[in-house]
Amino acid sequence: MVSLHSQGLADLIAGTDIFYSLFCGAAIFLMQCGFAMLCAGSVRQKNVKNIMLKNILDACGGALGYWAVGFGVAYESGTFMGTSGGRFFLHDYGNYIDFFFQFTFAATAATIVAGTVAERCKMVAYLCYSLFLTGFVYPIVVHAIWSSDGFLSAFNPDPVRGVGMIDFAGSGVVHMTGGATALVAAIVLGPRIGRFYDEEGNLLDKPHTFPAHSVALQVLGTFILWFGWYGFNPGSTLAISPAGYGDVAALCAVTTTLSAAAGAVSAMFTDTLLGFIAEGEAEYDLTMCMNGCLGGLVGITAGCSVVEPWASVIIGLISGIVYVGASKLLVLLKIDDAVDAIPVHFANGMWGCIAAGLFAAPRHTALAYGTAEYGLFYGKWALIVNQILGVGFICLWVAGVMTPFFIGLNFLGMFRVDPLEEKVGLDISHHKGAAYNLDVADADDVNELHMSKHGKGETFNDA
Amino acid sequence: MVSLHSQGLADLIAGTDIFYSLFCGAAIFLMQCGFAMLCAGSVRQKNVKNIMLKNILDACGGALGYWAVGFGVAYESGTFMGTSGGRFFLHDYGNYIDFFFQFTFAATAATIVAGTVAERCKMVAYLCYSLFLTGFVYPIVVHAIWSSDGFLSAFNPDPVRGVGMIDFAGSGVVHMTGGATALVAAIVLGPRIGRFYDEEGNLLDKPHTFPAHSVALQVLGTFILWFGWYGFNPGSTLAISPAGYGDVAALCAVTTTLSAAAGAVSAMFTDTLLGFIAEGEAEYDLTMCMNGCLGGLVGITAGCSVVEPWASVIIGLISGIVYVGASKLLVLLKIDDAVDAIPVHFANGMWGCIAAGLFAAPRHTALAYGTAEYGLFYGKWALIVNQILGVGFICLWVAGVMTPFFIGLNFLGMFRVDPLEEKVGLDISHHKGAAYNLDVADADDVNELHMSKHGKGETFNDA
Amino acid sequence: MVSLHSQGLADLIAGTDIFYSLFCGAAIFLMQCGFAMLCAGSVRQKNVKNIMLKNILDACGGALGYWAVGFGVAYESGTFMGTSGGRFFLHDYGNYIDFFFQFTFAATAATIVAGTVAERCKMVAYLCYSLFLTGFVYPIVVHAIWSSDGFLSAFNPDPVRGVGMIDFAGSGVVHMTGGATALVAAIVLGPRIGRFYDEEGNLLDKPHTFPAHSVALQVLGTFILWFGWYGFNPGSTLAISPAGYGDVAALCAVTTTLSAAAGAVSAMFTDTLLGFIAEGEAEYDLTMCMNGCLGGLVGITAGCSVVEPWASVIIGLISGIVYVGASKLLVLLKIDDAVDAIPVHFANGMWGCIAAGLFAAPRHTALAYGTAEYGLFYGKWALIVNQILGVGFICLWVAGVMTPFFIGLNFLGMFRVDPLEEKVGLDISHHKGAAYNLDVADADDVNELHMSKHGKGETFNDA
Repeated sequence: MVSLHSQGLADLIAGTDIFYSLFCGAAIFLMQCGFAMLCAGSVRQKNVKNIMLKNILDACGGALGYWAVGFGVAYESGTFMGTSGGRFFLHDYGNYIDFFFQFTFAATAATIVAGTVAERCKMVAYLCYSLFLTGFVYPIVVHAIWSSDGFLSAFNPDPVRGVGMIDFAGSGVVHMTGGATALVAAIVLGPRIGRFYDEEGNLLDKPHTFPAHSVALQVLGTFILWFGWYGFNPGSTLAISPAGYGDVAALCAVTTTLSAAAGAVSAMFTDTLLGFIAEGEAEYDLTMCMNGCLGGLVGITAGCSVVEPWASVIIGLISGIVYVGASKLLVLLKIDDAVDAIPVHFANGMWGCIAAGLFAAPRHTALAYGTAEYGLFYGKWALIVNQILGVGFICLWVAGVMTPFFIGLNFLGMFRVDPLEEKVGLDISHHKGAAYNLDVADADDVNELHMSKHGKGETFNDA
Repeated sequence: MVSLHSQGLADLIAGTDIFYSLFCGAAIFLMQCGFAMLCAGSVRQKNVKNIMLKNILDACGGALGYWAVGFGVAYESGTFMGTSGGRFFLHDYGNYIDFFFQFTFAATAATIVAGTVAERCKMVAYLCYSLFLTGFVYPIVVHAIWSSDGFLSAFNPDPVRGVGMIDFAGSGVVHMTGGATALVAAIVLGPRIGRFYDEEGNLLDKPHTFPAHSVALQVLGTFILWFGWYGFNPGSTLAISPAGYGDVAALCAVTTTLSAAAGAVSAMFTDTLLGFIAEGEAEYDLTMCMNGCLGGLVGITAGCSVVEPWASVIIGLISGIVYVGASKLLVLLKIDDAVDAIPVHFANGMWGCIAAGLFAAPRHTALAYGTAEYGLFYGKWALIVNQILGVGFICLWVAGVMTPFFIGLNFLGMFRVDPLEEKVGLDISHHKGAAYNLDVADADDVNELHMSKHGKGETFNDA
Repeated sequence: MVSLHSQGLADLIAGTDIFYSLFCGAAIFLMQCGFAMLCAGSVRQKNVKNIMLKNILDACGGALGYWAVGFGVAYESGTFMGTSGGRFFLHDYGNYIDFFFQFTFAATAATIVAGTVAERCKMVAYLCYSLFLTGFVYPIVVHAIWSSDGFLSAFNPDPVRGVGMIDFAGSGVVHMTGGATALVAAIVLGPRIGRFYDEEGNLLDKPHTFPAHSVALQVLGTFILWFGWYGFNPGSTLAISPAGYGDVAALCAVTTTLSAAAGAVSAMFTDTLLGFIAEGEAEYDLTMCMNGCLGGLVGITAGCSVVEPWASVIIGLISGIVYVGASKLLVLLKIDDAVDAIPVHFANGMWGCIAAGLFAAPRHTALAYGTAEYGLFYGKWALIVNQILGVGFICLWVAGVMTPFFIGLNFLGMFRVDPLEEKVGLDISHHKGAAYNLDVADADDVNELHMSKHGKGETFNDA
């Protein structure tokens, strides 16, 4: 009797944990849709097909690249990276849901870049990059910070300074990696024509902002991303059955919510305040609100499982300000980010890692990580040191690998589209025509229809 | 051995119940996206940013307001409301997933109003209102009907008339509260310019209907809402592990589906029939179909766990008719609801509460509520009396609090935008420009591109 | 103690399995939204309301029809079909979640057809068809292949050739049934005016492609569909608690992902290559990419639980090619499919059934189906023979029933809209006007506003 129970319980535990990762992974996968909508909404109408194609292809390329190589590089044994083992091509690895869940993170890291380089990056460059990122660059970061062999990993049997780096769901691993790549790419690629310089290369009096072609798509994307984050953060427990895991997941759901809300509010009102000081007029900027919300989500991602709810509100409030500041800094530096992904993912990814080192509370680090270390504001230094090291490592690694990669692509003429193609837009140049066709019916036909139906000889325009 | 099992099973139960509320809460959260898309699609193009910003901000403000105050008011002890305890600011309350799940309901109640007052309500008024609703007005209703201290609550240890009010997922608590607020707001705020009166205030010969700017967004929103309802209704079991809870949740999924389907069909054909009688022509109105569907969803929300599937079909059919009738009544009364949220949420919320009192089946009330009371059609009066009392309480409470609130805002000139701003639209007036920019590429550039590529000297227009 | 445990565990198992089907069913339900967006995006702007109304109504009609009749026909006892029992009207059937989950499949089968016949099919014909399909035609296929009485069913206590047909989530049952219906409908209905023939019926020099009205909606729909497939395929285990079910579901998630990714890549590059050969220019076609992705999803649906991950990549790669080939074949045959649903669902549904017969691996068929049979590439013939029989059965059954049905509708003049209505578009003809209204604010008003706010006398155009 007891042994039957044992078996029934063990089966149920196995099934429930798989179900949990299936739900969370699916929600994270939907973030691909969120990114696609957000990016597409943010660009000009003439590049919508191009950016969406990139968004789909990096999900697809990410799946194939991560299956073939990346998953093994990330989680097989090895000092710097996994080099052999059953995870490569999943040829001898039975924990399928683990691959599925991890793939969704890799795809997220890859797709962050699409928006930044939108409207001027060649498709072939994007394909090369996204395979390189999901197959190699990102997995190395995962290996260092999340695998049991990682030199900074909290899951290393003997973690550095007794705790390793706390990056629960990837403010650093995912968002900084994607965001740092975007930053390097934006610098090498240069700004869009007409953003800071005119067609002849003369500096504009002030930077030109290209209006988003569809705010509706941006909002749709933002909400879908927020929803997906409920898979991203709580799901990073990787299981729900062990003692306390549910509590950790629940805390993640709450801190994620509060930080997102605080980020949205703080970014919007910061912008309103700055505008009021400069122009004497209070306006409410929807884009600021949305990106602040996303900034708050990125900012809580590292520490979602270890900070108190009140701390998540503070983290979110600061995230909003970090976003606004980083966005303005980029403009000052004449770095053109078509969707402001660098301020959202890179700057707030960095802030998220630091924030976890500041606010991590003893009772939560004990539960989520089984460590006696915690954040600076509670009195310990070890964690914040690790967090800063982690931030530095990601910056150096990504910049070190991606800079020559993009410079190489650029040198080979494979990175940036022809200026005329850029002016016309990539949809007509490379994708068989525009993304929308809003032609309406011929007015004569409409009148004929209405006359025929009503038989009263009145025309549509009269009605 | 047994005690290890005990522990393993207890942990799994805890984890699974948290997972259940996480999934359901996330699905409900996505309804924010549904409302945003539905509302944005329903308004004119010139107010899209404004309505979407309101939709995002009420989710964010709702999260912060409910965290700070609302959750405590709703569920801490007290006769009329919770006044102190660990739930305020979550400062001493460990059941995080409970907060997350309940927050999604508060946010839903808040966002219902956004659509009704669209196109003419000031942002600052909306912010005040949404904090007031999520922090105070809505929590009081929750306290009365869902908390263990509530005078009408079915969860009161000694429920009134042996059953309390059955409002399983909130036809009354959520939808009527939001809808009643919308009704009061619409009356105080007045109709949009050009809806019933022209710019000089002269009555129009017949009411003018402003066409929705994007039916695609409306449909998107409707489907997302329907999806979210599978979290809203089944999720209101609050757990899935106890005996019978799964069966209750499953019944909710079925009744929700059937009522939505029946509502859509009945509203559309009712409208088609009325149109045919009036004009002799059969047309199929997509908006009627969508709002009927939403009406069916609201109508089943109170009774989803206690009515038979066949009864849910009847409830849905009537919901569709209630929607059509209430919508026409509003027009007669010259109350302007930009998205017909009052007929959907207020009228059908009321119908849902009543319907639960009529159709609640003995076997289901016993399972879901552990009571021997049930609906009028099965022969008992106690429940329907409570339902009517609950409807009356919500109406009186919301009207009593919200009427002076909105009149006060109006008196202070904080409620309604300036007529010129209304004509121009709120996006240009307050949000830095229009929501869409569909500029296409310059035709000369396109021709130049095509000539350069093909080298045939043919122009784009020839092709 | 032990018996309390027994009970607690049994309750938890029951609850968890219901929760699993609730999540998967809800995700599948969201595919209705995906189809609506994909179809609406694919058609011309003048028919958007019409196609979306069809998409909503087939979900609603499907729910009511499947509740009343279809569910009983599918799963009650009987040689050819269920004829009586508690499932009809759910009047005596307690497993509610089973109905909910199965309904989502029926609705999927129904909605596949909407896209194909878009822009020219009468609403009343569509309503008749969708009730007929969900109430009768589709349930018969389910009965044959999925019920325990089915002559080809793998769940028959004595399955034919020791295995029956392996169609795990319905490449055949759902997608071929929907796709074959679409094919018959497209043939009977004829092409849209101007597609292959001009208004006078003269053959065009080359087929005219109507551009999609919104690529953004298409991409949105594709991603939502992909997301929904994580309910569709893994969810087809129907439970998650029994030993090994979790592993099967996890495999499904992985094979689904890889096949979708491979299909997208292969269809796009096949198209690019063909274009390059024909025109000497490499273009990347987003529609090809999306439909290839969907083709890969359909192609893996039958075998998702029984093939190795590497095989799913091959299946996906071939799915992409099958899609491109079938799409071109339809054009050659002058069969007009407004959204290419036939290549995606019918052609790849067929390929999916065959692929399962080729690639089914011994260890996976043993786990998922408890059979010693497996695919041809591993050396056994029984399964592939069954798969081919199943494909033949579905084709014959659907064609045999649907051909007279559509011919009858056509004969009665109930199938195709009037040519003038088709030219004007169905939205204006039947649905009270166009789907979009993008009117902008009056320029004079805007100027007045800006002058009044800044008081500087400058006009908007100057700014």
